[in-house]
Amino acid sequence: MSLLLTPGPVPIPDFVAEALARPVIHHRTTEFRSFYTGLLEDLRYLFQTKGATGTMIGSGTFGVESALYSLFRPGAEILVVEMGKFSERWGAYGSVRGLVSKRLSLNWGESPKVDQVVHALREMQSPQGLVITHSETATGALCDLEEIALAVKAIWPDLLLVVDGITSIGTLPFYQDAWQVDAAITASQKALMSPAGLVAFGLSAAAEAALQETHSGDFQNWYNYLKSSETGDYPFTAPVQLLFGVGAALARIRQEGLPAVWQATHQAAQVFRQYLVQRGGKLYPEEPSDSLSAFFFPDRDMESIRKALIEQHQMHLSGGQSQLKGKIMRMSHMGTSANVSLMQDVWAAMDTIL
Amino acid sequence: MSLLLTPGPVPIPDFVAEALARPVIHHRTTEFRSFYTGLLEDLRYLFQTKGATGTMIGSGTFGVESALYSLFRPGAEILVVEMGKFSERWGAYGSVRGLVSKRLSLNWGESPKVDQVVHALREMQSPQGLVITHSETATGALCDLEEIALAVKAIWPDLLLVVDGITSIGTLPFYQDAWQVDAAITASQKALMSPAGLVAFGLSAAAEAALQETHSGDFQNWYNYLKSSETGDYPFTAPVQLLFGVGAALARIRQEGLPAVWQATHQAAQVFRQYLVQRGGKLYPEEPSDSLSAFFFPDRDMESIRKALIEQHQMHLSGGQSQLKGKIMRMSHMGTSANVSLMQDVWAAMDTIL
Repeated sequence: MSLLLTPGPVPIPDFVAEALARPVIHHRTTEFRSFYTGLLEDLRYLFQTKGATGTMIGSGTFGVESALYSLFRPGAEILVVEMGKFSERWGAYGSVRGLVSKRLSLNWGESPKVDQVVHALREMQSPQGLVITHSETATGALCDLEEIALAVKAIWPDLLLVVDGITSIGTLPFYQDAWQVDAAITASQKALMSPAGLVAFGLSAAAEAALQETHSGDFQNWYNYLKSSETGDYPFTAPVQLLFGVGAALARIRQEGLPAVWQATHQAAQVFRQYLVQRGGKLYPEEPSDSLSAFFFPDRDMESIRKALIEQHQMHLSGGQSQLKGKIMRMSHMGTSANVSLMQDVWAAMDTIL
Repeated sequence: MSLLLTPGPVPIPDFVAEALARPVIHHRTTEFRSFYTGLLEDLRYLFQTKGATGTMIGSGTFGVESALYSLFRPGAEILVVEMGKFSERWGAYGSVRGLVSKRLSLNWGESPKVDQVVHALREMQSPQGLVITHSETATGALCDLEEIALAVKAIWPDLLLVVDGITSIGTLPFYQDAWQVDAAITASQKALMSPAGLVAFGLSAAAEAALQETHSGDFQNWYNYLKSSETGDYPFTAPVQLLFGVGAALARIRQEGLPAVWQATHQAAQVFRQYLVQRGGKLYPEEPSDSLSAFFFPDRDMESIRKALIEQHQMHLSGGQSQLKGKIMRMSHMGTSANVSLMQDVWAAMDTIL
């Protein structure tokens, strides 16, 4: 069994595993409502928001797609910043949903500049939304969300800013309210150190106002989740065990404090990159995120190094996806991988192969 | 902590809990593909089909909605048999999705007759789909799916039959191929004794042919799941831990054999209902499902009995929903509740209250 060092899923620590193994409780009970109300409050801390928070069953992809489904109506114009495999999904989904998705397509590894985003928005008739991936898992690139958000909102105050924070929230500094993010989305298998299957989101007042009722059985409509959560309820069968796991992770994050968690991620990334540079390796993105290191050694086949690490050291890093297949490796610094001594172990193993 | 006797979620048995606690593996690995290919094969046994099977992150509601989303295009005419809270969702969702949803609305507790279904279909221009709930969790009513399916398919061979089997598949006799069911859906927290959060489905060749490509990132489109599963892959982040749990339950069901599992459910229901009748109680539906007993005592406030069972005996049964609130109680015979001695324990407790 390999040690999982991929940028999601991350290994499940014991304290989360114990929470997952708690006896099932029914979701139509006072006990559940009280637990869930507390969890939603802990999510406010995670997102740094005073607004509404929610969860739904799904993977991160479904979370972002549900934001588009819930916030915009067919015909609405949105701008999607494409900077890798994951962010490329949002524009395509917007089109499936009937939105007018304009794409700002960057080369993989690049991060959007404020001017590019503002320019792209200016070319649109009446942009209603902007979708940005804060930290792109496929390339390891970060964008300066604060700078972009403040510039855009100064010109288009009514535009809804949707942020894929799947590999950033809970690992990198993220301030939903201060950065005027209208919809922030994350998933359970990254900073929250839980099994995949749960989406968490935070909404500004403007985003909440943009929700529309469809039908109480519409699984994808955030309206239903917010309405139920006023009483601590879930609109559908609640994923009770997953919520137990995420609840335990949130409690741990509150206890340690977000600054300490961010710093641990940052330090693991720093240490990893010092070793990398010493060995002639390079980071792939121009503006690297601390959540993961996407890296390569010039003129080396990265896939054979990756396989050797698995076979000889039981250490499982991710390779590149799509156009980056065989060209990079990706190492997580999130959750259980936000650990300096683990970075040293990985390099000790890498040195036997290089 | 109460013993959960609700018709979903059911308690998680130890052998499933152990599977859930296995170390996370990454979903882009040979190990995962091999495991998942085996699981899809086990699902063929569960559904009694030679067709394609799949899973997706979601609750049962999302599973049925995804069937409608994946199989029909806006404008398609479908008939939805409404017989309780859950089945009422499918027609409403169909309308949200742009389908022409005609409803055959029965009183709660009733089951559809063949003639009613055929008559309703005859009144439609060109029905493309029929959505039936095999066992309605809100009322405990079963429908004679085999009889209805064969009659309907004899007249409309091209119509796609979608079956909500959430509280029937794995607990009651169900034969997808023999009954000509085109899309069968179940969820993890019932017969599969796992945490809520996973949908499983089976597709006929006709249903598979009706799938259409939208975009590879469209989370709700079954097309993506079937395409990936050809190689044992998952189109999105796989819910690895949930799949481990469901895999363990499926292995157990294969080992015991479906007939033994069906019989255990049936026997638990029979024993429960003998006690019920002896005490002057009545079953609520006219054609009861063995998956659960929805019952009442004439002139008694069922909610106070239910609360007393929780407070005095830590036994948690469900109450009625919507129009049945306070009027019935619902006891599970699925999964860990398919157990005769447990039924005796429940009645020993009930006798101290009645």
